[in-house]
Amino acid sequence: MFYDDIDVGTTVRVGSYRVDAADIVSYAQRWDPLPVHTDEAAAQQTMFGGLTASGSHTLAIRTLLLHRVPIQDGVIAAGGWDKVRFHRPVRPGDELWLEVTWVAKRRSTSKPDRGIVTALMKLINQDGDVVLSHEDIIFIRRRSSDRTVP
Amino acid sequence: MFYDDIDVGTTVRVGSYRVDAADIVSYAQRWDPLPVHTDEAAAQQTMFGGLTASGSHTLAIRTLLLHRVPIQDGVIAAGGWDKVRFHRPVRPGDELWLEVTWVAKRRSTSKPDRGIVTALMKLINQDGDVVLSHEDIIFIRRRSSDRTVP
Repeated sequence: MFYDDIDVGTTVRVGSYRVDAADIVSYAQRWDPLPVHTDEAAAQQTMFGGLTASGSHTLAIRTLLLHRVPIQDGVIAAGGWDKVRFHRPVRPGDELWLEVTWVAKRRSTSKPDRGIVTALMKLINQDGDVVLSHEDIIFIRRRSSDRTVP
Repeated sequence: MFYDDIDVGTTVRVGSYRVDAADIVSYAQRWDPLPVHTDEAAAQQTMFGGLTASGSHTLAIRTLLLHRVPIQDGVIAAGGWDKVRFHRPVRPGDELWLEVTWVAKRRSTSKPDRGIVTALMKLINQDGDVVLSHEDIIFIRRRSSDRTVP
């Protein structure tokens, strides 16, 4: 998929990713060693009542699932993430899907080979609850930039 | 550090974290398998001219460095991240510091044991360049919530 293939207003759903306790703990031990992410007994004493995934881990799962949307050949760079919100905890046993809604697109004024796409990302669990949402700005190639103009 | 200890207007600097190629590649192979993050030869053919860290990896480094600011006992949950921007690539050999500026704080109106703190986060490399910035909303305990009122 390239800039030209992005159909504003449509939603793509990909998945799923199954989270388990070992995954939550190993990610958090490396990157976010808070007891609520690394220690089941300690986590049970928190308001969450058990292990939850690090926010950074949840974003990593979002990133991994985005690879199932075929935009890899088009993507130039990540422009940024806005309004990242962690709506509900991600827990062991959760099965997560990613919903990508194409919100807007515009051609770059300075670089004719690309455009800027805004997407709304939602990570959704097996109960249909949104666990994470954010806006994503992506710089993406135009399909026509592959062609040489005679 | 608890809510009461947050001094709005001040900046804390912690670090550092040294990034190497193996770290960039192994993170990306698991969570963001784009050639610019996983394949040195392919990365050299991109506009970046070599391996760069995944945005998700860069956020993970930010999260890890935040553990050097002693707020772990106070933190209740992450409220969200706003205006996440990847200003420059993170490359092998980079040494990264985290600067946390406390921007605002207010007490929760519904839950007297906590407050909401807004911080500006900047990840800065060895040349003084900001590679990542974002606003962070943190729910954090009040120190007085530890005490039992007679």
